[in-house]
Amino acid sequence: MIDFEPTSEQQALAARVRDFVRDVVIPYEADARRTAHGPTEALRQELIGHARAAGLLSIHVSREYGGLGLDHRGVAVAFEEAGYSMLGPVAMNIAAPDEGNMHMLDLIATDVQKERYLRPLAAGGGRSCFCMTEPPPGAGSDPGALSATAREDGDEFIIDGRKWMITGFDGAAFAIIMARTLSSSGDDLGASMFLSPLDVPGVRLVRVLETIDSSFTGGHAELEFEGLRVPRDMVLGEVGEGFRYAQVRLAPARLTHCMRWLGAARRAHDIATAYAREREAFGQRLIDHEGVGFMLADNEIDLQQARLAIWHTAWVLDQGRRANRESSMAKVFCAEAVWRVADRAVQVMGATGLSEDNEVCRIFRDIRAFRVYDGPSEVHRWSLARRLGRA
Amino acid sequence: MIDFEPTSEQQALAARVRDFVRDVVIPYEADARRTAHGPTEALRQELIGHARAAGLLSIHVSREYGGLGLDHRGVAVAFEEAGYSMLGPVAMNIAAPDEGNMHMLDLIATDVQKERYLRPLAAGGGRSCFCMTEPPPGAGSDPGALSATAREDGDEFIIDGRKWMITGFDGAAFAIIMARTLSSSGDDLGASMFLSPLDVPGVRLVRVLETIDSSFTGGHAELEFEGLRVPRDMVLGEVGEGFRYAQVRLAPARLTHCMRWLGAARRAHDIATAYAREREAFGQRLIDHEGVGFMLADNEIDLQQARLAIWHTAWVLDQGRRANRESSMAKVFCAEAVWRVADRAVQVMGATGLSEDNEVCRIFRDIRAFRVYDGPSEVHRWSLARRLGRA
Amino acid sequence: MIDFEPTSEQQALAARVRDFVRDVVIPYEADARRTAHGPTEALRQELIGHARAAGLLSIHVSREYGGLGLDHRGVAVAFEEAGYSMLGPVAMNIAAPDEGNMHMLDLIATDVQKERYLRPLAAGGGRSCFCMTEPPPGAGSDPGALSATAREDGDEFIIDGRKWMITGFDGAAFAIIMARTLSSSGDDLGASMFLSPLDVPGVRLVRVLETIDSSFTGGHAELEFEGLRVPRDMVLGEVGEGFRYAQVRLAPARLTHCMRWLGAARRAHDIATAYAREREAFGQRLIDHEGVGFMLADNEIDLQQARLAIWHTAWVLDQGRRANRESSMAKVFCAEAVWRVADRAVQVMGATGLSEDNEVCRIFRDIRAFRVYDGPSEVHRWSLARRLGRA
Amino acid sequence: MIDFEPTSEQQALAARVRDFVRDVVIPYEADARRTAHGPTEALRQELIGHARAAGLLSIHVSREYGGLGLDHRGVAVAFEEAGYSMLGPVAMNIAAPDEGNMHMLDLIATDVQKERYLRPLAAGGGRSCFCMTEPPPGAGSDPGALSATAREDGDEFIIDGRKWMITGFDGAAFAIIMARTLSSSGDDLGASMFLSPLDVPGVRLVRVLETIDSSFTGGHAELEFEGLRVPRDMVLGEVGEGFRYAQVRLAPARLTHCMRWLGAARRAHDIATAYAREREAFGQRLIDHEGVGFMLADNEIDLQQARLAIWHTAWVLDQGRRANRESSMAKVFCAEAVWRVADRAVQVMGATGLSEDNEVCRIFRDIRAFRVYDGPSEVHRWSLARRLGRA
Repeated sequence: MIDFEPTSEQQALAARVRDFVRDVVIPYEADARRTAHGPTEALRQELIGHARAAGLLSIHVSREYGGLGLDHRGVAVAFEEAGYSMLGPVAMNIAAPDEGNMHMLDLIATDVQKERYLRPLAAGGGRSCFCMTEPPPGAGSDPGALSATAREDGDEFIIDGRKWMITGFDGAAFAIIMARTLSSSGDDLGASMFLSPLDVPGVRLVRVLETIDSSFTGGHAELEFEGLRVPRDMVLGEVGEGFRYAQVRLAPARLTHCMRWLGAARRAHDIATAYAREREAFGQRLIDHEGVGFMLADNEIDLQQARLAIWHTAWVLDQGRRANRESSMAKVFCAEAVWRVADRAVQVMGATGLSEDNEVCRIFRDIRAFRVYDGPSEVHRWSLARRLGRA
Repeated sequence: MIDFEPTSEQQALAARVRDFVRDVVIPYEADARRTAHGPTEALRQELIGHARAAGLLSIHVSREYGGLGLDHRGVAVAFEEAGYSMLGPVAMNIAAPDEGNMHMLDLIATDVQKERYLRPLAAGGGRSCFCMTEPPPGAGSDPGALSATAREDGDEFIIDGRKWMITGFDGAAFAIIMARTLSSSGDDLGASMFLSPLDVPGVRLVRVLETIDSSFTGGHAELEFEGLRVPRDMVLGEVGEGFRYAQVRLAPARLTHCMRWLGAARRAHDIATAYAREREAFGQRLIDHEGVGFMLADNEIDLQQARLAIWHTAWVLDQGRRANRESSMAKVFCAEAVWRVADRAVQVMGATGLSEDNEVCRIFRDIRAFRVYDGPSEVHRWSLARRLGRA
Repeated sequence: MIDFEPTSEQQALAARVRDFVRDVVIPYEADARRTAHGPTEALRQELIGHARAAGLLSIHVSREYGGLGLDHRGVAVAFEEAGYSMLGPVAMNIAAPDEGNMHMLDLIATDVQKERYLRPLAAGGGRSCFCMTEPPPGAGSDPGALSATAREDGDEFIIDGRKWMITGFDGAAFAIIMARTLSSSGDDLGASMFLSPLDVPGVRLVRVLETIDSSFTGGHAELEFEGLRVPRDMVLGEVGEGFRYAQVRLAPARLTHCMRWLGAARRAHDIATAYAREREAFGQRLIDHEGVGFMLADNEIDLQQARLAIWHTAWVLDQGRRANRESSMAKVFCAEAVWRVADRAVQVMGATGLSEDNEVCRIFRDIRAFRVYDGPSEVHRWSLARRLGRA
Repeated sequence: MIDFEPTSEQQALAARVRDFVRDVVIPYEADARRTAHGPTEALRQELIGHARAAGLLSIHVSREYGGLGLDHRGVAVAFEEAGYSMLGPVAMNIAAPDEGNMHMLDLIATDVQKERYLRPLAAGGGRSCFCMTEPPPGAGSDPGALSATAREDGDEFIIDGRKWMITGFDGAAFAIIMARTLSSSGDDLGASMFLSPLDVPGVRLVRVLETIDSSFTGGHAELEFEGLRVPRDMVLGEVGEGFRYAQVRLAPARLTHCMRWLGAARRAHDIATAYAREREAFGQRLIDHEGVGFMLADNEIDLQQARLAIWHTAWVLDQGRRANRESSMAKVFCAEAVWRVADRAVQVMGATGLSEDNEVCRIFRDIRAFRVYDGPSEVHRWSLARRLGRA
């Protein structure tokens, strides 16, 4: 039956997250340990300590690994509240890429792999990263261009290749690495995923990129694998099935991005609304100028519609369906809607919106990036169009 | 619990409506009795006969008056399917303004009024109209400018005033008339609603306007009341409460418009998609051109988001809430989304989309009007902004 | 030297056209002889009589054939004024397709052809049409799909094929026909253009299409050529050079469309502005509501920018350059800008804008078509993108 | 006569600037002395040295003070080329706010004032700033809210007040200060402008704001005047005429911003186009995907239309007219057009566009600010609407 009422458990969880973010997290937004490449590890650990104490750490993971075993709708309701501060997901250990990595490990990893990598990660230990994207002409929007290789060598694979825009690599404890697998005789076995610690030979940080966004711990790195050895039992899932697993990770990961950014956009809107209620120009409050009020009205519509897109897609996932079409539609709509919201919030606040005196400008910059990562709008439109063309 | 699965009853009803529209209604689209002012009465009666036979007449009305007593979500699911042909709502007797009038009579009218007006209307008898809008400078987007008057005269009210853009007046059996009520001594008692047959003295059709849309039976009329006498027991609801009742009518009526036009926009999109799959230019199918495929992808997103907005607002109404904010948001979003869909459908089809050889152009013209009636987008944005300013 | 001052001759001509349109043409807008397929021939002749008397007939043609021999900038300034009423171009004999046909005949035709076809056409005699577009799967946006044929037969060509969306065919005296030329042995000689009267065997009107627009005399026809014989000396230009000549016609013709529709959009804007200055809602004039005033401000910007695009492209053409890139850019920008203007004008006027009580709705409908004809926006963007890809 | 050909002098100057920017300035873009608050003074002086050597320093100033005495059209042509690198205007000493300050001093200052302030500034000496904007609730978009005061005290004025978003204050040699003038008896004499060095008592830097943009030398400061004494002969223009002079500064300054940002947007577009020509995805070059190519085509249209708006407004100013309406229209159109261009350039380049590895992201961030400063789009639309309402 069509119903838009979250369960009482979901509502209670959302309220707890909301209070936690408001009372504990937001005061940290003024902390000087927020850098251009996200919060420092010290700040991250301090925040994680608070979430642990509040029972709000890694809530999306299965109960076996310390989470609440939420379904996608439960995640949707809670993550929006967490995203209300850009530090919220960091504190609750539900930020990208860790959150998506935990989700995938939970679904695909062997017990040995889970104990080694998932359990400490879910407990707020060392961070992880997901090494798929490569600098041109490697794998970008088109994953088929994957150029990193993993060559079989007895019971190991030897990984070589350059990766780029790898969120959180700097300072991470381990990585999930996507590479084109080659048999010892050089046959192409397809793409596979590999698990590896990063404090080992064959891993080299080239640089951390300067980017427009600043909320991700560790920033986005360029790095090189040169002869990195990974034992065969650290292949994640089956050899040659890397792209299929990437889909397992990407559709929900795409949606959790939507959830968190919805929260952030709501925050920007709330700040702008408060500003427009208080500030006067030309004889009346800004919000009483239709030119401003209409922008805020459009924000409300965009926020509401983004929430509906997320809830719907989460529901489809909860039915056990892959939701490729729905998550593509939701990604395009949400990324563009929250972008409009953030852009209007900046505009309503004028010069104040351009400064870092408040969170609006920072949210704006981060949200710009969301129109590109997890598939640019154009790639999702292309995918939707192809689907239509086939039908 | 968040759920997007219509009940099995709703699904079954939707399927019946879908089949009825496809098999029975759509073949009538080529009927020459469709005029610039909607289907002729003969065509309307023929269509209604089919719906009656199919058990699909006035389905939204309470069971007591021949309907299915659907809740708003049930209405949403069925009306979208009905709207898939612009003749669908006519056939099923759920077109504006009759549909909204039945809804309001069902809620507000006395038993005597219901027997006299609601029962025959719901049975597919003579049509009705809703006389609120007035030519400038009377009541338009701003109902407060109401200038028609109803002066007490013993047990009657005498109504005078000019109305304009009155959908379905030409050929209607009766009207609900909004007028400013004056006591016999001239005191302003506020706006009231009156029920009156139209084949009586004091009612004059000035003209039927030529307008861009063409789906409403009887078109849109300008008319004059001159000394129209209405007995006191034909006041609908309380004297002075007209605007409050108008709200009772308008929020759901606004939403049923969204439902029907969502169906029509889906139709335009389907026609355009079929065209783009078949037609070739510059060496490939139109749909394989990203410039076309992206438009169709955006259509899918807009249709989906409009549906979500409607379902959500219907759910709010079903919780017994007034949904003023939600229905304003849904009206703005849906009217503009279905408009974008229709506009892209025209563009994809090129010259074919500009001709009346198919339904796309006709849908496009009718949908343009929807951005204006039931509150232009600007009035709803204004209302949303005011609400934000007060909070 | 960069200069935006029309010459004094251009200014004087513009003023004469403006006065003529205001004083003579606009009063005819209420004339009942305006039909869904443009003005009747009687109305057209009456209007042409007025323009002839005012010395404003066919002003764009060379002096030898009765015009003023204007350059493209002169045309730009005068045609915008003419377009201020949709009857202006009809009166002045500068409406499509006659205007573009005269331009092409002036440039390409032989003296014999000019005397036979151009002179009477420029004098306001029988109308002409341009038969290129074909129903799917023939020549539409992609002229390469041309399917009509002209087979050599001694000193004649025999033309067969179906044409569609042929503006002004119904009632025209002659046609310029694009067909794929076949030698008597069946070799494909490329596309050529042919001149033929229409009151001859082998010409059949299939129907006049019902379309969204209504300003073109004769409407848009579907027709069939079956064994139409055209003597060899009535080939326009060289055999096999049809597409090249089409370009000669199309770039300037595209621009004169922009000019006329700029005038029409300005008209819609002026009507909406006057309405917004007069009408009140919610306690103040519409124009004092920022939600309305901002729309009108955007109209002013769009009108100004469209004019600049036109003037610039006209200047490029006057330098003797082909202006393919500039005219594609101007077409896209102007068609979409005047469309936005007309759409906002409708919205500002609310229900009044949806009715045919004024010119706004009619302008709106006609302008919608302009985003499709003379190359849909998408075809021009495609052409611009290809050019960028080659550079 | 309508003409779009710059004079040969203008073309020659543009070519010199283009070469200078390409050969000398662009190589500095990788210089580490570019900070979040613009180039360091050392970098600035090095760049200025190059421009001086090339004869391209302060070209907009009158010949008497070392410039070329260009008219606004000459400025338009040259500044677009200068803006092609964000360091170009810095090098040529034509960046905001110095450029506008020089322009105003040239027009309004006394000879004594010019010798003291204009001559060294035009020669590339110490920078200047313009102290008008104040933190809420002072003068922002609505200058009428001015709260800083200048109280007469004998032959001096004593200035008190807080200013905010003052571009270039940090490190500047002098300031033009807008303050509400009070007579010694406390009468309000209206707003006036004052010239003052900044290495004097009563001037305090509160902080340099962190903002989204980074091209302005010295960044944007908050500062406080406390008892700053300015002698009467350092009033710029007449007492009480400050707002009138601000208009003298603002209309052209607004336009020079448009010129420089047009150059920067063109640069972003060129970088994105080169990227799209080279990079492949899904089997073809990015630029051959219509989804990408159409964005670049739209960029070309926006760039062209922005240039036309600038040239037209410059021409109006060159006719000696105030161009308030034209410069408002140009500001709105250009700020939004260059913004669209920069946004599309980022999107076309994907992750590369989000990183600071190239100029696109930096241009994007700076251009966002331009929609706010020199009057947010909304203030100009409001002003245009009011003008329409009065007519």
